[in-house]
This record gives sequence, structure tokens and C-alpha cells, in this order.
Amino acid sequence: GYAGLERSRLGLDGAPEWPRLQAMLPPVEGLRVADLGCGYGWFCRWARQAGAARVLGLDLSRRMLDAARARTEGEGITYVEGDLAALALPEARFDLVFSSLAFHYVADFGRLLAAIRQGLAPGGRLVFSIEHPLLMAPRAPGWRREADGRLTWPVDAYLEEGPRETHWFVPGVVKHHRSLATTLNSLVGAGFALARLEEFGPSAEQVASRPEWAKERERPLFLLVSAAAL
Amino acid sequence: GYAGLERSRLGLDGAPEWPRLQAMLPPVEGLRVADLGCGYGWFCRWARQAGAARVLGLDLSRRMLDAARARTEGEGITYVEGDLAALALPEARFDLVFSSLAFHYVADFGRLLAAIRQGLAPGGRLVFSIEHPLLMAPRAPGWRREADGRLTWPVDAYLEEGPRETHWFVPGVVKHHRSLATTLNSLVGAGFALARLEEFGPSAEQVASRPEWAKERERPLFLLVSAAAL
Repeated sequence: GYAGLERSRLGLDGAPEWPRLQAMLPPVEGLRVADLGCGYGWFCRWARQAGAARVLGLDLSRRMLDAARARTEGEGITYVEGDLAALALPEARFDLVFSSLAFHYVADFGRLLAAIRQGLAPGGRLVFSIEHPLLMAPRAPGWRREADGRLTWPVDAYLEEGPRETHWFVPGVVKHHRSLATTLNSLVGAGFALARLEEFGPSAEQVASRPEWAKERERPLFLLVSAAAL
Repeated sequence: GYAGLERSRLGLDGAPEWPRLQAMLPPVEGLRVADLGCGYGWFCRWARQAGAARVLGLDLSRRMLDAARARTEGEGITYVEGDLAALALPEARFDLVFSSLAFHYVADFGRLLAAIRQGLAPGGRLVFSIEHPLLMAPRAPGWRREADGRLTWPVDAYLEEGPRETHWFVPGVVKHHRSLATTLNSLVGAGFALARLEEFGPSAEQVASRPEWAKERERPLFLLVSAAAL
């Protein structure tokens, strides 16, 4: 199950994209931080240890929040149960909103971004990751071995945006495929300036230590975005 | 050959992405415009007719520039032979730099953007199209019919940026594959703010009138970008 995933067991160190995502963050010392879809709270604890003034961790799963609280010592982190689809943040109360691999479960991305924008103080940052749209787009996602030996990721339906039902530990999990253009135009439309975009695949060094990751350089795995509130 | 292409014969009206690209332009009335890779000069003449103060058309091909001049009446458009790889524009002399399907032939995109940024007046715009990186990335680009009847575009080598040799009327044409992230981060790094991005495929209406275009909705065909000089 989900709890057995490397990133669930090992936290940030079990997520190969974390060093790249971390490099896209502003210095967190003194910042008021929100983590949308905080899961077991790994990022909340990292941010607090790195000097964040206070951290709000939001998640839909009470069970995960209970586990997050059990792993958290000291003051400064508040875990709250909540649905990103109905997010409402107090105005200008945060300097950094972070989210890892959660936004592709939200159908109305424009609404979500408006709520985040309202919660950010001027100059605040939004840093998030989602599955890359190339993973979500295909009607039947999967690798294929070509006759010439190449491993390819066949793409279709990229321009047909909307829900995609997949099997992710339980059947019937719905992700919302949006083109990269829609993701970025939604940000601009909500009052953000794009600061940096990464299409993450493992580095050559990471592949050297984990040869089974080699195929993840054939097409990007995650989209990492850093944007500034205007 | 190239001269027989619909977009070569019919100009802007023969390019299905033109309405979308046009919608990303600022009002051109009174603007000083440069068209990088102007070919037969279709955009130069459109901009001048739409009220541009003056237009510079730049292209590598003397033969195309001769044809462009032969089709151009009146004042206000200057055609100049030049290589985008060595572009140098006078400082802050333009309000709009436009380019259609030329930048993917340039190896050093950062150098090109720096030259464009220098040529733009503050608040100026850069609007351009390139082939979508999904077209350029694969080691053996092409469609495939799946066992279940779907038409897919198999992707590999997306994260391996660099030259791609293709056959485009003549063998050995070299395009430079850059990830979408690299394209956008290069813009931000050169002092531009992303205003709008489009991953172009034909609309449902366009497919209705040209059924052979239906597959072009399975993966985007062109990248259209509008950026503001900061």
C-alpha cells in the first residue's frame, strides 16, 4: 500500500525529485508556510527544522494526519484536515505555499490557485510538484519496447483535458489531466509570475546508483513549478 | 519542396496555428516590429497592413528574401539577410519581435534571447512559435497504430536535449531539441515574463473541415509563446 512507498517510509530522502524541488524553494527561515496535501508531514517537519516560523499542514486523510502528529515533536506545526477542492486560506497569511504531488487530484485548478493567491502575502511563493501531463494524458498509459529495442512512452489524448481514472493502490482513483500550457496559463491568470519550471527525470548520477530508473529519462516524470505572487 | 507547402503558397491563412498566434499578439498599430525568419514575408506584410510603423524582416535565405521583396508593395518593410545564430539588434529599437517556426534551428537559445531582449524596448513583446518538443525529442519520430486501434506518438529521449537530424525536404536538416522547461527557464533567465503559452493542435472546428488533422489532437504540434520584456 501507499505506506510502503519509499517516499512514505523514508520521507523526503525517498523522493528522487526532492533535491531539485528543494533548490526551487526560497530560504524558509522565518517564513509562514503551508503544505497542501502534507501526508505524513515530512515537508512540514523539514521546513520547521529549517527555521520556518510556523507551518500549517493540510490533508484530506485523518489517518495520515494522525500519523503525522505522532511523528512530530515540539511547537510550530499545526495539522488540519481539509479538502483542497474547497480550500480557503486567511488573507495574506503565508509566505510560502508548498505542495507535493497533490494538485493533479483537484478538478478546478483555477479555483485552487485563486485560494492560494489570496492566502499568500505579496512577494510570496508557490512551489509545487504534480505528475507530468505526459504521464496522465494517455488513454492506456504504459511503456513499450520497440522492435529496435528502444523503450518508448506512447502518447495520445494530450489535448483532451479532464479526468483520468487510474488504479493507484485502489481502483478508481481520479486524476485531472491538464496540458502544461493550461497549468502555466492558469498560474498567470491567477496573478503569479513563473519563476522556474522543471520537467523532472532522474539525473545521470541517480541512474548510476539506481539502474532501474534509466527509463525515467525517456520522458519526464514530474512537473516542478516555482511561481511568485504578484 | 518548401515552396509548395500550404503555408508557403497561402501565407498566414495556410497555417492552422495562425489564429491562435495572432490572438497572442499585442495590437500592432504604431509598433516597430521585427520578424525573425520571415521567409516570404507574409507576417511582415500582415503587420504593416495592420498598422505597424515599420517592419524588419530577417532571413537566412537570399532566395526567399528576393521572393518576399517581389511580393511587397509600398514603404515600411525592410528585408535583411542574416543568421539568427549571430543576431545583433540595435538597443531598444523594437516593440514587438515575432518569429514563426525558426528558433528550433538555433543551437544557442540563450544567446538568441539575449540579443532579442536587447533589441526590445521596455515593455516590448516577444511572440514566437516553434515545433513542440514532443515532435523533436524521439530518436525515431512517427505515429503508430496500436493493437486497440488508437493512434499514438511514442516518445523517448525527451530529457536528452541537443541536435536532432531530420529529413525536411532535404536530408540532414538539424533541429535543436530543448525541453519545454529549458525553453521557459531560458526566457525567464533572459529577462522575460511568460504572458501566455499554447500547445497547439487543431480545434474541433478545424478537424471537422480537415478530417486528416484529427491525429494532431493526440499530441501538440507547435509551441506558441508570448513573453513580455521586463
